[in-house]
Amino acid sequence: MSAKIDFSVEELGKRGVKSPIKLSKVHGDFIANYVTDNEFVLYNVDVVLGDQPPIDRTQVFEAAGPREMIYFSPQHVHAGIVTCGGLCPGLNDVIRAIVRCLWFRYGVRRISGIRYGYKGLIPEYGFNTKELDPEVVDDIHKIGGTILGSARGGGKQVTEIVDSMERLNLNMLFAIGGDGTQRGALDIAEEVGRRNLKIAVIGIPKTVDNDFSFIQRSFGFDTAVNKAVEVVTAAHMEAHSQINGIGLVKLMGRESGFIAAHTALASHEVNFVLIPEVPFDIKGPNGLLHHLEERLQRRSHAVIVVAEGAMQDKLVKEVKTDESGNLKMVDVGRYLRDQIQEHFDRKKIEINLKYIDPSYMIRSAPAVPVDSIYCERLGNAAVHAAMAGKTKTIIGLINNEFVHIPMKAAVSQRNHVDPEGNLWRDTLDATNQPILMENKNPQGPTVSEGTDPLELSR
Amino acid sequence: MSAKIDFSVEELGKRGVKSPIKLSKVHGDFIANYVTDNEFVLYNVDVVLGDQPPIDRTQVFEAAGPREMIYFSPQHVHAGIVTCGGLCPGLNDVIRAIVRCLWFRYGVRRISGIRYGYKGLIPEYGFNTKELDPEVVDDIHKIGGTILGSARGGGKQVTEIVDSMERLNLNMLFAIGGDGTQRGALDIAEEVGRRNLKIAVIGIPKTVDNDFSFIQRSFGFDTAVNKAVEVVTAAHMEAHSQINGIGLVKLMGRESGFIAAHTALASHEVNFVLIPEVPFDIKGPNGLLHHLEERLQRRSHAVIVVAEGAMQDKLVKEVKTDESGNLKMVDVGRYLRDQIQEHFDRKKIEINLKYIDPSYMIRSAPAVPVDSIYCERLGNAAVHAAMAGKTKTIIGLINNEFVHIPMKAAVSQRNHVDPEGNLWRDTLDATNQPILMENKNPQGPTVSEGTDPLELSR
Amino acid sequence: MSAKIDFSVEELGKRGVKSPIKLSKVHGDFIANYVTDNEFVLYNVDVVLGDQPPIDRTQVFEAAGPREMIYFSPQHVHAGIVTCGGLCPGLNDVIRAIVRCLWFRYGVRRISGIRYGYKGLIPEYGFNTKELDPEVVDDIHKIGGTILGSARGGGKQVTEIVDSMERLNLNMLFAIGGDGTQRGALDIAEEVGRRNLKIAVIGIPKTVDNDFSFIQRSFGFDTAVNKAVEVVTAAHMEAHSQINGIGLVKLMGRESGFIAAHTALASHEVNFVLIPEVPFDIKGPNGLLHHLEERLQRRSHAVIVVAEGAMQDKLVKEVKTDESGNLKMVDVGRYLRDQIQEHFDRKKIEINLKYIDPSYMIRSAPAVPVDSIYCERLGNAAVHAAMAGKTKTIIGLINNEFVHIPMKAAVSQRNHVDPEGNLWRDTLDATNQPILMENKNPQGPTVSEGTDPLELSR
Amino acid sequence: MSAKIDFSVEELGKRGVKSPIKLSKVHGDFIANYVTDNEFVLYNVDVVLGDQPPIDRTQVFEAAGPREMIYFSPQHVHAGIVTCGGLCPGLNDVIRAIVRCLWFRYGVRRISGIRYGYKGLIPEYGFNTKELDPEVVDDIHKIGGTILGSARGGGKQVTEIVDSMERLNLNMLFAIGGDGTQRGALDIAEEVGRRNLKIAVIGIPKTVDNDFSFIQRSFGFDTAVNKAVEVVTAAHMEAHSQINGIGLVKLMGRESGFIAAHTALASHEVNFVLIPEVPFDIKGPNGLLHHLEERLQRRSHAVIVVAEGAMQDKLVKEVKTDESGNLKMVDVGRYLRDQIQEHFDRKKIEINLKYIDPSYMIRSAPAVPVDSIYCERLGNAAVHAAMAGKTKTIIGLINNEFVHIPMKAAVSQRNHVDPEGNLWRDTLDATNQPILMENKNPQGPTVSEGTDPLELSR
Repeated sequence: MSAKIDFSVEELGKRGVKSPIKLSKVHGDFIANYVTDNEFVLYNVDVVLGDQPPIDRTQVFEAAGPREMIYFSPQHVHAGIVTCGGLCPGLNDVIRAIVRCLWFRYGVRRISGIRYGYKGLIPEYGFNTKELDPEVVDDIHKIGGTILGSARGGGKQVTEIVDSMERLNLNMLFAIGGDGTQRGALDIAEEVGRRNLKIAVIGIPKTVDNDFSFIQRSFGFDTAVNKAVEVVTAAHMEAHSQINGIGLVKLMGRESGFIAAHTALASHEVNFVLIPEVPFDIKGPNGLLHHLEERLQRRSHAVIVVAEGAMQDKLVKEVKTDESGNLKMVDVGRYLRDQIQEHFDRKKIEINLKYIDPSYMIRSAPAVPVDSIYCERLGNAAVHAAMAGKTKTIIGLINNEFVHIPMKAAVSQRNHVDPEGNLWRDTLDATNQPILMENKNPQGPTVSEGTDPLELSR
Repeated sequence: MSAKIDFSVEELGKRGVKSPIKLSKVHGDFIANYVTDNEFVLYNVDVVLGDQPPIDRTQVFEAAGPREMIYFSPQHVHAGIVTCGGLCPGLNDVIRAIVRCLWFRYGVRRISGIRYGYKGLIPEYGFNTKELDPEVVDDIHKIGGTILGSARGGGKQVTEIVDSMERLNLNMLFAIGGDGTQRGALDIAEEVGRRNLKIAVIGIPKTVDNDFSFIQRSFGFDTAVNKAVEVVTAAHMEAHSQINGIGLVKLMGRESGFIAAHTALASHEVNFVLIPEVPFDIKGPNGLLHHLEERLQRRSHAVIVVAEGAMQDKLVKEVKTDESGNLKMVDVGRYLRDQIQEHFDRKKIEINLKYIDPSYMIRSAPAVPVDSIYCERLGNAAVHAAMAGKTKTIIGLINNEFVHIPMKAAVSQRNHVDPEGNLWRDTLDATNQPILMENKNPQGPTVSEGTDPLELSR
Repeated sequence: MSAKIDFSVEELGKRGVKSPIKLSKVHGDFIANYVTDNEFVLYNVDVVLGDQPPIDRTQVFEAAGPREMIYFSPQHVHAGIVTCGGLCPGLNDVIRAIVRCLWFRYGVRRISGIRYGYKGLIPEYGFNTKELDPEVVDDIHKIGGTILGSARGGGKQVTEIVDSMERLNLNMLFAIGGDGTQRGALDIAEEVGRRNLKIAVIGIPKTVDNDFSFIQRSFGFDTAVNKAVEVVTAAHMEAHSQINGIGLVKLMGRESGFIAAHTALASHEVNFVLIPEVPFDIKGPNGLLHHLEERLQRRSHAVIVVAEGAMQDKLVKEVKTDESGNLKMVDVGRYLRDQIQEHFDRKKIEINLKYIDPSYMIRSAPAVPVDSIYCERLGNAAVHAAMAGKTKTIIGLINNEFVHIPMKAAVSQRNHVDPEGNLWRDTLDATNQPILMENKNPQGPTVSEGTDPLELSR
Repeated sequence: MSAKIDFSVEELGKRGVKSPIKLSKVHGDFIANYVTDNEFVLYNVDVVLGDQPPIDRTQVFEAAGPREMIYFSPQHVHAGIVTCGGLCPGLNDVIRAIVRCLWFRYGVRRISGIRYGYKGLIPEYGFNTKELDPEVVDDIHKIGGTILGSARGGGKQVTEIVDSMERLNLNMLFAIGGDGTQRGALDIAEEVGRRNLKIAVIGIPKTVDNDFSFIQRSFGFDTAVNKAVEVVTAAHMEAHSQINGIGLVKLMGRESGFIAAHTALASHEVNFVLIPEVPFDIKGPNGLLHHLEERLQRRSHAVIVVAEGAMQDKLVKEVKTDESGNLKMVDVGRYLRDQIQEHFDRKKIEINLKYIDPSYMIRSAPAVPVDSIYCERLGNAAVHAAMAGKTKTIIGLINNEFVHIPMKAAVSQRNHVDPEGNLWRDTLDATNQPILMENKNPQGPTVSEGTDPLELSR
């Protein structure tokens, strides 16, 4: 968070409607209180004692939650919900929570599901909306995917989209999607503003990679790690049961290695984790192949986890983008598989390399309970924000509290694994992985490396 | 956090040994840095803009992690690990992390597991210690329970315990356990101090109920919620498949309803949640029985979750304590079961009530991945603290960062569900549960209550 | 199968309608063939070489499956489906299969779900039927329980039931339930016959205990064992983590110990299995308490599985029956718990006994895939039988083939674990359990008992 | 079973040793009985009433189980266990059962695990054996893979293998593996015979594809279906959440489509199942592409399951074999993926095709309880056979009973899905899949095809 950003969020106008939700304004009556506009959540908790600068709007986020006065009259609300981009565990939980909060808490009775991402708002694709109510969404959290359908792209056709929103008389849009989706939502909200429409645009950040800036953990992430651990266990079993068995698992993470690092920490069976944030050599005296060969000599098997975005700087020759504006990637999993096989073929060492790419199985899973809770609360917060007339705002989790983040700030940067931070340090500890680059270990080996008679058997 | 507490932690003495862990002291070299004594984590992130008082040691916790200079020479360390009290998912993960960090990071070669809680240090019970090394702990995270065995009590026999620690030449003790265990650990550390011994006593807080003060989430909690959701699903299936089926599930939570509230939020199938923090009536016009009867008339089935500590103030006639000093409780689950059955018998309404008490199945489960990661990192942090000579200190997670908390502060209070906070508000929203007390809903019903033709089918 | 029973099944009349299902009558064309009335499945496969008696209708069952000529015109069919008694995994799968086979294969368009067992056909209870079609049942196999609701009893009110069936113009009834339900179905079918109605009554045997005679395995059984193994694992973890920990698990099995025996075989962690078929002593030199004490001395923990019907002959003082006509039982789980606790209290030996009764969690689980397949095929076979005009017939699985069994034969006896058969022998081998009766082990101990220095650690 | 095969199994010689297992020889004493050589299990249960030929040794298999008199003196036994070929759920369960039965039932104290298949018996590979006892195998059933390691090939080096067996003084070898492994075992047993050695060679048939002849179900098969259903659920979620989403899953099944068919039956979400036994067209008016396009027009998504051996006759140009003698295959999954993509690209129809090949994740899974039970009993039966001096014999499950099958018969043929049998008929019913070949549906469409307004939503 280098440059100072003002984290104030926009509102459509004066809030003149009394909320139908009956809460309290006093403490001590055992009834929950409305959230006021004076409640903020501090972002940075790492402090140095001594003189601190005063806290201002560049350091705090507005607390999310139900307001006493709201902007929209519930009986006039027509809400739209759209899910964009790749699948992510918990999408249906979020949809369900939004529908139920609108319906039961505010009494909203017109809720339209937009089909297949922004394309559902572009006439040329010809998709109808899907009417949503509590009955329709009742059990959808038990299955993965999204009942609305999802698709990449479409977000650039802002004029057509806002035309459609006008035709539908939408006055709030919940856009569930990643970086590209939120950039699209901001464009839409700005066009809405130019037309002087009163439509609240609320973003719900979705990234199974956990690479959304500010947010401490994105929904679906724990589920993804859960499934990834299962896959690594399978890869380990394969590796452990063969002569010089190598399990190579490619996990999601285009720009950030969070899934890879957490999976390694949780599974306890990974020997090498390769992520986009930490450069590494394949060849050379400190390269992956060298250390892999040593590992096979010592233990006869190895497990490697690689995030899909690792090495992209080295691998990508020509830059392409997909429909959501994401860069197209070279398949680092297959590249590594071939490099490893070639290396050992050349050395005439028999290996049994099993390459697993489980992405579809991970992202389509239904949410585990901890994610379900997150989605439930996230959806509620989004509805409260929209009813209060907040717009150009995404809902985030900061230091375990739900907050409003201006879209502009949210899409301006990404969240990364800090190569010098605690998470990566603990990941290296858990894997016993050496530093895979020349001249990067000036202080010599740590105690455990290679010298220990009772080395871990995995 | 009403009274001001100084959160400084004690150390055994000057740190004169260079850590065998090779880390960096500069940023930008892609190598993790040592943690310095000037790094702190702010506790309270709820701020009001304007004049803030300066931040002092009553508001921040010391960051955990590896120090450059440590107190103990690794080759002279003999570490003891003890697990106390009831089972909790993740115990073996913590043991494993401590052993591996001591062994691989610091080169410690003498690690003793104390059997069956503090009783393992009291000669009259006659238990031997269990030698621990990475081979022994390699796969233990895959099973529940604790390989050391656990037991309640013993913590009051401080003299015998410290005698044993002297006999064993222990110079660090990792005490994994709840409130009572940490109080015992503090007593032990104080006796250690009186004898002028140099033994680091580090507590790892264990409470499946999540009621440890300061700590944002205790290890094993997510696993417990996971299993509890399975049970509630079963209770719902039973209730839903019978004439006036009622599923009544008692969940853990002696003083705090965190498991109950989170389970209700995650399962989406609970109609009433009863927790210790929120008083409720059983009888009367706003009481549970009245609303339950209404619910059965509308939907023919209902699911009730009750935390074991609910209603204890009303139920307990004579106060008893168990070996750990916990108050003995009246079984609120059976009490409610009988009250409900009597009520409908009296009204001659056929019900099918299924009462489930799944506690043993929940607390003995192996940790889910998100808990595994937590335990791994918690164990690492505990070892770094002990090697640095910290003592009378527990390891906590505050705003997603691991910190040192003085034992005295940690055991001085408990963590509770705030009846007026966001968690409970969202829980009530998820369950549509009315306020179960007379005179507690002065503002009239909210939109959804009873008036809606398309009411939720669960 | 002592007495000779003729296994011929009854039909409503001449089959004069061509089946709308297009199958083949020749082999070799890669199209499945109709099943003819000359296809039979032999029941007893244990043979002694030499002279065999000719095979007649007392040894074979009619093969189930689609017939070329059927009795009912699909467009005139109104089918009823009823689920009775306690829950069992797979009920929804069976309902789903029946509905889909009727609808898609035969074109039947009137299918009524009877609510809450036979009570749904008795006017005084006032339940409406629930219209069923493929849309309604599409996803029901993913949840446990029964979407129709279930209840015990009602089967004796034959007149009212058949009156209702006439009013509804039902011409086939699928009765999914246990022994008592099938006895009720037979009574109903006989009343149907007396009134000269043309209603096919087809039974689908449901018993999570697996105690239906003839049938090799009842649906839901594998799911139940699956869940029971999870519970035993929890009980083992509790026992293993405490001083003299004892895990005592009561499993379903009123008259047969199949779940208990299979669970012990699968879990590998059970030390004593107590089932109704095998008598045992609690006290005395070969009794359970004696051997349990010895086990605790050797291994410090033990796991006991007891089927609910064990010891009933000894325990039951006064005989009562529930609504389905099942004998009411004394709770052997609590009885054993108290006996064990008393024994060790008297001997002043500290034990930690955890008693778990997981029945509701087991029987409400959704079916595992192997049970799903069974239910799918069972439901298909039931529909083919009904369409062919078979009546007073249940569908069974014999030597891996689906067959028709006359109801009269099916309800005449029960399936038991043979105390001298292979299953029980392998169970004893898996548990190392001694024979728990005096004078029952005349040939002395086997090799393994007590004499081995490297005894199993569980 | 066309040609008549004598199913008698060979024995090493006269059984002159009294078994240390104490069983009974009388019925009614509540003690299991020894199995005698006069107990047989009939193979074929499909009968036609009328004159039956007398039952002889070409129709029955010898019952497995403990004999009163055995061939080997337990104290002189040195047993070897080898696991060959690809992984399969349950391998560790079988190893565990063999070790425990040898140790606890017979008192055998020398048991050697052969590493990495037959290669572990060939000196040039340089692998040591692994000593096995109950402690080593205690918990191995909880993990997948094989603790011995496995490898393909080596079975042709019979001389070296038998030399090694002599050097090790093995007198029994348990060979756990597929068709090729058992052919190797037979060669080994014949060489053993030529050298006049007294080594019992017992095969335990392992085929996750379930294609072993005679055997009703191979161990690990239910686990494989379980895991495959999870994958199909993921594929369905992906397909269902995208514009014209197609989930294409390749499952194991080189020569037999059992996994594919059972998975389709269990998951209820598959629209097309393609297996080796049933020919199908890709192009043309009845081909897969045509019907897939129709399906997308109707339902916008589709799920296809293809067994790896499907279409091999059409695809394979040059025949290659792998180390175990299996034919190398063309990857039908990728072939179909490309064909489908090309077809819709050519027609300019946007599809979203997700191709999943989950083989490694399926075969490395730990066994589900029903498979665990099977493996436990299979291992016991193998030990009883070896101790009795049976040789050139595999253990099979026939009509739910364990039997001895001569190796020669077992490897002479394969088990296939009968395209005209009940399993395939029910699979077609479950999927609503049309016959995918021209001129193969002479009798016209069945009721459900295309004509129904309320068509299934999946």
